[in-house]
Amino acid sequence: MAAERLVVIGGDAAGMSAASQARRLKGADALEIVAFERGHFTSYSACGIPYWVSGDVEARDDLIARTPEEHRQRDIDLRMRTEVTELDVPGRRVKALDRESGKMYWTGFDKLVIATGARPVRPALPGMDAPGVHGVQTLDDGQALLDSLDAVGSDGERRAVVVGAGYIGVEMAEAMLKRGFEVTVLNRGEQPMATLDPDMGRLVHDAMDGLGITTVNGAAVTGILTGPDGRVSEVATDAGTYPADVVVLGIGVEPETALARGAGLPVGPHGGLLTDLSMRVVGHENIWAGGDCVEVLDLVAGRTRHIALGTHANKHGQVIGSNVGGGYGTFPGVVGTAVSKVCDLEIARTGLREKDARAVGLRYVTATIESTGRAGYYPGAKPMTVKMIAEYRTGRLLGVQIVGRDGAAKRVDVAAVALTAGMTVEQMTALDLGYAPPFSPVWDPVLVAARKTVAAVRGAGS
Amino acid sequence: MAAERLVVIGGDAAGMSAASQARRLKGADALEIVAFERGHFTSYSACGIPYWVSGDVEARDDLIARTPEEHRQRDIDLRMRTEVTELDVPGRRVKALDRESGKMYWTGFDKLVIATGARPVRPALPGMDAPGVHGVQTLDDGQALLDSLDAVGSDGERRAVVVGAGYIGVEMAEAMLKRGFEVTVLNRGEQPMATLDPDMGRLVHDAMDGLGITTVNGAAVTGILTGPDGRVSEVATDAGTYPADVVVLGIGVEPETALARGAGLPVGPHGGLLTDLSMRVVGHENIWAGGDCVEVLDLVAGRTRHIALGTHANKHGQVIGSNVGGGYGTFPGVVGTAVSKVCDLEIARTGLREKDARAVGLRYVTATIESTGRAGYYPGAKPMTVKMIAEYRTGRLLGVQIVGRDGAAKRVDVAAVALTAGMTVEQMTALDLGYAPPFSPVWDPVLVAARKTVAAVRGAGS
Repeated sequence: MAAERLVVIGGDAAGMSAASQARRLKGADALEIVAFERGHFTSYSACGIPYWVSGDVEARDDLIARTPEEHRQRDIDLRMRTEVTELDVPGRRVKALDRESGKMYWTGFDKLVIATGARPVRPALPGMDAPGVHGVQTLDDGQALLDSLDAVGSDGERRAVVVGAGYIGVEMAEAMLKRGFEVTVLNRGEQPMATLDPDMGRLVHDAMDGLGITTVNGAAVTGILTGPDGRVSEVATDAGTYPADVVVLGIGVEPETALARGAGLPVGPHGGLLTDLSMRVVGHENIWAGGDCVEVLDLVAGRTRHIALGTHANKHGQVIGSNVGGGYGTFPGVVGTAVSKVCDLEIARTGLREKDARAVGLRYVTATIESTGRAGYYPGAKPMTVKMIAEYRTGRLLGVQIVGRDGAAKRVDVAAVALTAGMTVEQMTALDLGYAPPFSPVWDPVLVAARKTVAAVRGAGS
Repeated sequence: MAAERLVVIGGDAAGMSAASQARRLKGADALEIVAFERGHFTSYSACGIPYWVSGDVEARDDLIARTPEEHRQRDIDLRMRTEVTELDVPGRRVKALDRESGKMYWTGFDKLVIATGARPVRPALPGMDAPGVHGVQTLDDGQALLDSLDAVGSDGERRAVVVGAGYIGVEMAEAMLKRGFEVTVLNRGEQPMATLDPDMGRLVHDAMDGLGITTVNGAAVTGILTGPDGRVSEVATDAGTYPADVVVLGIGVEPETALARGAGLPVGPHGGLLTDLSMRVVGHENIWAGGDCVEVLDLVAGRTRHIALGTHANKHGQVIGSNVGGGYGTFPGVVGTAVSKVCDLEIARTGLREKDARAVGLRYVTATIESTGRAGYYPGAKPMTVKMIAEYRTGRLLGVQIVGRDGAAKRVDVAAVALTAGMTVEQMTALDLGYAPPFSPVWDPVLVAARKTVAAVRGAGS
């Protein structure tokens, strides 16, 4: 009997993790693995691109965890620069286009993994394709941006406009600042970091001000204007125009599911593929999907969300590879943890924002505290603000947001575990967290927030 | 009707937190509060003493969270330099000795809080009281040590011997190193940091070597030798003598319960007072106890332990004050979290060590991994080692130990919450922990350890 064939569409985190894990469990005699990647790279850290652009990370190849050659050495038939253009589910085959040769061909599969990722939102506005306007989704994007920075030259004013003030936007603002640009961030929302509540986003805004980054809130881009050389010269918004020698788009991403939708696979309200707990596409015995192209269950909200994040993609790949390879694994869902930074300002969130809680019918209380990451008397102690959201009456933890310095961000992990465990804020006040003066005040900031939230729950009556 | 009287014995973290919280809930017309402190200071951070001795913290007063005057302003009748020498439980009164005036008197109570703390273990060996031999338990101890360092002078060799290689020992080794001393740590055990398993303690040993601190394992001190000036000159052990211009004792502490035991109050196997969940002394309606003088329930082992740690003392005080003041609070127990550092080496533990698991009849598996605190390509990424212990068959998390740099220590908090929630290592592999290249590899070290421990659980069969 011939070996089963696994086809993987997409050669980044989810796809190649799945392929690698399946190979770990099944040798080449039992499982043939064919993987298609339309780009030039495999298994790279897209999250690292801002730090490569900033110069913190020296070389593009530092971001590549595993090269095509390394995958091939593990008996994975990896076909680079080859795009899958059609998926025939009943016929169990995919049509592939070799972009180098132009050759097109069908390949059959017994099992299929869809890991097509996400594509950047790129509004259909005039001038969006002008030279000097860059997304930062792929390594190719990053290289194009770096080449573009060289084209700007180092004389005179160097002005960068970053469109979008989410994670990618603020990270790219830092990167452009480090590259010596005068940076303006155009933000459509009320405050930067819309993944936080506006009161916490405001702290990010203030800190960015302090770093010399201009943030314009409530500014919707209406078009990109170009100069006589055809290159970007200004960004037009409904609230004025901003001169720009380079424009970075950090507006966010959406699931890349055209292929899967074309084949009739189920997508959710956010455009991502729907899977079960084993990451199998709903209703399809032999098709799995993971990474930025799927929706994940938000364990706090009880709904699916779309979250493009390398750590989830890797977990998905691991789970898929285990199941495809005859093992067992599940991905129960997320609580929505995310961390980021702008220079030394750390930003973290997990669980629900106020508006998320309202959207799913939860009544809640909030509390916000200021503390420090070390004992106040210990050198280098710096402020952090912690906001906590708990359910009315029950006191169940719903979410935490942290903005601060010096160990602020990863403190959110405590809340992420507490959310996963369904803890109340009262239970959290008794948590046995690590204490020593260089690492925490005697009451860790998370505990201080929990205590104040307990008081808020009680104060809200029942 | 006269106001009820609360008497508090001990003016540090547990006692004064209790007094303050009780005062918050009940005004002076409803509750009279009398607090006795035999020393010169209240509400100070004993955990901060090593950093004051090292010079990281400038002034002694930086370690004082609240002065006697501040307490008195909140209607607490605080009697400094006054020691309670006798407790008459049936008569509901304490006998106090004013150390300044020599006056002795009885004071009645309706409610009593015992917060007498811990005393350093000081072996009865020849020369232990010689000038130049110092404990570091109180601010007075710290001042005496600093004065002693001045006496050593700054010329020629300056040699410090630290006796004990637990938290205080390693922190004091760092402090003496920073003060320009040649430092030798004499450790009775197999490896430093006996609160870790020896395989992890060995990493601390190696790192201390790298810092220029000499650690002698398996060395039991037999006496202190003095020079012609009467001051310490050498420390004798069963494995040779070590020249010393100053000796720091960091051997640990034991509960200070002589007063309570004299009054017939119940103590546990570790010499600490036994309380219920509300921190009430077992069998005594109107007596509470907290801080370093009590035993606490180890939630993982299901047994009581003695842990002297400011963060527990503060929680105890908060709970006691709530209950005494007519509110409600409980202290469910600990999971045994502790963090520390020697220079830039971070050390953390939570839950059970291998020998703790064996001691309570648990069969277990372990896994140890090496990772980094940031994405490997991100500047400043440094190694950390994570050891995880899980129950055989069930895979329930039993303990985690971490030794490393750059954000290693506080990662143990994730495990502390997971232990509290009773999670299995398999559940932990799905935890949604914060990921971004400056803060974590795409698989957080804790998740990498959990994955390897899952494999160990499976590998151990059933």
